[in-house]
Amino acid sequence: MGSASGSGGGGRPAERGARPARRRLGVDRRREELVAVALELFGGRDAEDVSIDDVASAAGVSRALVHHYFGGRQELYVAALKSAAAQLEARLRPGGGARPLDEAAAGLRCYFDFVEERGNGFAALFKGGPAGRGGEIGEIVDGVRHRLFRLLMRQMGVDEPGPVLRVTLRSWIASVEAAGLDWLEHRDIERRVLERMLMEHMVALLRAAANHDARVGQLLEDLVRDHAP
Amino acid sequence: MGSASGSGGGGRPAERGARPARRRLGVDRRREELVAVALELFGGRDAEDVSIDDVASAAGVSRALVHHYFGGRQELYVAALKSAAAQLEARLRPGGGARPLDEAAAGLRCYFDFVEERGNGFAALFKGGPAGRGGEIGEIVDGVRHRLFRLLMRQMGVDEPGPVLRVTLRSWIASVEAAGLDWLEHRDIERRVLERMLMEHMVALLRAAANHDARVGQLLEDLVRDHAP
Repeated sequence: MGSASGSGGGGRPAERGARPARRRLGVDRRREELVAVALELFGGRDAEDVSIDDVASAAGVSRALVHHYFGGRQELYVAALKSAAAQLEARLRPGGGARPLDEAAAGLRCYFDFVEERGNGFAALFKGGPAGRGGEIGEIVDGVRHRLFRLLMRQMGVDEPGPVLRVTLRSWIASVEAAGLDWLEHRDIERRVLERMLMEHMVALLRAAANHDARVGQLLEDLVRDHAP
Repeated sequence: MGSASGSGGGGRPAERGARPARRRLGVDRRREELVAVALELFGGRDAEDVSIDDVASAAGVSRALVHHYFGGRQELYVAALKSAAAQLEARLRPGGGARPLDEAAAGLRCYFDFVEERGNGFAALFKGGPAGRGGEIGEIVDGVRHRLFRLLMRQMGVDEPGPVLRVTLRSWIASVEAAGLDWLEHRDIERRVLERMLMEHMVALLRAAANHDARVGQLLEDLVRDHAP
């Protein structure tokens, strides 16, 4: 499950001066706790149906306190999605060194760790649809997709993808989201099988894309050659 | 771009009394006009930023009239998305008779006709949306995806898809959405090329899926055999 964010049990912030730091940590922690509770609720049912009261009651605090920390419901929702996005991305930091397809497969495994361990966070982030949402929310969600895309590009050693590669990988990222949501809904397919299949999907999509852009064909050749044991 | 919706110019709500049917038509038409205007606005920028005032002013009517027809902004938004969903689905009615992959390709062409002719409607449906797309909005959007899925199943002659086929086709549907949005954003790839590639993607995905479910392999064999000239 991973900790909500490196908050050690008794991690008391060493008394310095007049203790603003200590107070600050308390505030941050309380905020994180509320965000974590909110994320569970937002992802567990229709986000529209989650009120400040629900969050307050699930967290065992007053409605006024939640308002104090976040202002309104929308700010809380944004904070919750940002937190989910940061958690997901933190798991996907490039390892470096491995062969691109192995790195991508390792990334996919971390991605599904998040799906499995933080199902409600994943659902809150992506249930809206593989495509995205407007405003601040849309920026958060599309930001995650964009950084996944850049990460894949980096793994593959591509600087400037052409249209065919771009649309293929964006499509694949969307299909992985859909597969993650499907898995959360049904869980009738083994995670390892699903992950392997999605990696095979990526290679299959690149192969189809190679018919339309020779550079994709060259890239795929490199990837597969690198990948061969 | 197709007409906003067969609106007659001077659609004056006609002397009531003896002519309820005529008045009714005026009402429906006015409502459709407003929905069409709203859809353009909702899909053209962040849906959150579109107000009743914007819609009223774009439609050249009073704010009060929009309120009269729809109540609030959310109701108008829901009506606009329902309209986009209905327009998209109306284009995808099964033709029947053709070979499954040809039918799917024809469906994909109609899907992209909608993307091209009703870009803002497509974007509103799959991209836009205020805070969270759960609730009624989520049902509209997921409803479209679900019916696309059922349509594909019917074309392929599959009654009860197993998990591998289900996740594969849901992934493909998501990837087509992503490709549609990418195309609207960049338009740097020919539509025919993109459609052909997406169909090749579908076959490639099924081929990868066949490694994990023999029934998918059988299905694919049938599809490809049917497809061969």
